[in-house]
Amino acid sequence: MTTKFCTTTNLPCGFTTSAMHIGFKRKRLDFAVVKSETLCNIALMVTKNKFKGAPLLASLDHAQNGKAQAIAVNAGNANAGNGLQGIKDAKEMAYLVAKKIEIFNTDVIVASTGIIGKPMPMKVFRKQITDLPPLNTNFTQTEQAILTTDTKTKSISVTVCGAVIKGRTLKQMLKTAVDQSFNGISVDGEMSCNDMVVLMANGMNKISVKQIYFEQALRYVCLNLARMIVEDGEGATKVIEATVAGARRAGMAEKLARSLTTSPLIKTAAYGRSPNWGRIAARIGAENGNFSVEKMEIVMNGHCLYKNGKTSKFHTDRLVQSLGGKSVSIIVDLHQGDKTFTAYGCDLTEQYVAINAAYS
Amino acid sequence: MTTKFCTTTNLPCGFTTSAMHIGFKRKRLDFAVVKSETLCNIALMVTKNKFKGAPLLASLDHAQNGKAQAIAVNAGNANAGNGLQGIKDAKEMAYLVAKKIEIFNTDVIVASTGIIGKPMPMKVFRKQITDLPPLNTNFTQTEQAILTTDTKTKSISVTVCGAVIKGRTLKQMLKTAVDQSFNGISVDGEMSCNDMVVLMANGMNKISVKQIYFEQALRYVCLNLARMIVEDGEGATKVIEATVAGARRAGMAEKLARSLTTSPLIKTAAYGRSPNWGRIAARIGAENGNFSVEKMEIVMNGHCLYKNGKTSKFHTDRLVQSLGGKSVSIIVDLHQGDKTFTAYGCDLTEQYVAINAAYS
Repeated sequence: MTTKFCTTTNLPCGFTTSAMHIGFKRKRLDFAVVKSETLCNIALMVTKNKFKGAPLLASLDHAQNGKAQAIAVNAGNANAGNGLQGIKDAKEMAYLVAKKIEIFNTDVIVASTGIIGKPMPMKVFRKQITDLPPLNTNFTQTEQAILTTDTKTKSISVTVCGAVIKGRTLKQMLKTAVDQSFNGISVDGEMSCNDMVVLMANGMNKISVKQIYFEQALRYVCLNLARMIVEDGEGATKVIEATVAGARRAGMAEKLARSLTTSPLIKTAAYGRSPNWGRIAARIGAENGNFSVEKMEIVMNGHCLYKNGKTSKFHTDRLVQSLGGKSVSIIVDLHQGDKTFTAYGCDLTEQYVAINAAYS
Repeated sequence: MTTKFCTTTNLPCGFTTSAMHIGFKRKRLDFAVVKSETLCNIALMVTKNKFKGAPLLASLDHAQNGKAQAIAVNAGNANAGNGLQGIKDAKEMAYLVAKKIEIFNTDVIVASTGIIGKPMPMKVFRKQITDLPPLNTNFTQTEQAILTTDTKTKSISVTVCGAVIKGRTLKQMLKTAVDQSFNGISVDGEMSCNDMVVLMANGMNKISVKQIYFEQALRYVCLNLARMIVEDGEGATKVIEATVAGARRAGMAEKLARSLTTSPLIKTAAYGRSPNWGRIAARIGAENGNFSVEKMEIVMNGHCLYKNGKTSKFHTDRLVQSLGGKSVSIIVDLHQGDKTFTAYGCDLTEQYVAINAAYS
């Protein structure tokens, strides 16, 4: 009856993987496959961006029956904005991988990350995929192969033991977990054309757990992966955790909290260790909606900075010192309702500019 | 019957000005007054931000009768977030200035720019205002005194001659001009607590012009001042002019065009001279609304990059060369209606981060 959360990179029971340099990036590992021994129940969620990468469209098609057996993922080319040819290429990727690892092509989920609008170098892919190394249980290289601007690999595993789980509602559980994690983070407020989350369950560990424990573990994994993403945002030196509480509507709490984590002035202030709460007040005031800025309270790293319509007395030195740490917590309480939302973001540094000005 | 647009810094007939170092900033000029010989008809527009600086609230009060005779403006302290004391201070500023220049206190418009949430150093102000130098017609120092993070002063004057003007609809004319200029620009997508535009007309030049010529001149002034603001955005090296055409609704064209000028990825791409149109497509795709991304066409500096659902063939070298200039033009045609909006922004550079991380 216990849930143990640990962060090993052991693959779950029945899963194997392989990674290689297929040639989309100049030198690094840029392609990986994860395969399950048996067919999995899956849940797939993709970006809300209307301009979706071709692999997402191909994968949504393959996931229609709620089943899949493998994921094929490349870095270096997003295969987005390539029209019908892109979807043809994504489907061909799935087909060639399926052939290589001996499963059905429609049981392969394909994912791509990288530059938008460049044709997939399929000639290279067709030639190289035949050299995919044998599948094994070492996830280390696979983690490397799916990096884009990331500086660190991200993986996490959770062991759930005990009890009995009744029924399968993977999709709903994933949606809830993703809404509270990946959908609450942003590096710069942009929305990827290629983001996807896939949950695969092959049932091979033979352990049945109560749904509530599984849900708890899934939330833990998603939230921690999501935090790793913002921690590793381009050029980021610290995480901004922004909570808007006391809102009348949940949607308003979410809109305001997100606006705090994407505001360039708040992000540069976090970087510069500035207790400039006026930027927070200005950001909240800039949003439309049925709330009054007079009632709002602003708290930064535990120090109350603004309340009852005016600046609070606070220990500037202590606050500035705490802003030197790895995280900045901002709480804005509107004092007008009971809805709360927490958004996660990161600071904005010169490195962000340098990386994204050069990335093309 | 001609309208002559020129950019001198001559003050209009009947206006005088004075600037000084009052002590809100360490060394620079930080306070200025502009006075009209006679009472003016005025139109006042203030930021839509709910968290308005106290000077705006005081000025809205003073402007209720549509009349004013002077503007008092300081840099270094925004007098925002200071509660009732802030309004008291703003009113006292108006009173002390009025006394000094011998007009009624309710005929003074006050404006402040600088840090939010710091009390106004009124002791200093009360003492120093008595030393305001005599009013004169040299606007040069006044331009200096109202700078914040600006690197350059901004002023423009237009001479309108001939014809007859019937009736005064200053307010409506200003609103139209501002909507098409100041309201279409952004440096970083943030919304100031203290922005205001005030139009003063003392009728002393004795020239009557047709309303249409006056409107034309007003639009010219507003648009050019607005462009100067983005050109001089913190760390900016170039202006981004983003037009969204072919939208079904004007509001949608505006929302999308603004999203292009505030996107950190598009702004860094502009800085890095990158023809990465995928970031434009992703930005448009991220917005909710009743439009289809398949039909969209993307044109950058005259080069068509995306059309009919796929990448166009374009001269990368020529485009990259043109991106080395002082401006980047982006046109996204949705091909779904006849509504158009042009937004003006600037690129995002390491200097933006450095300036805003240090400014507190």
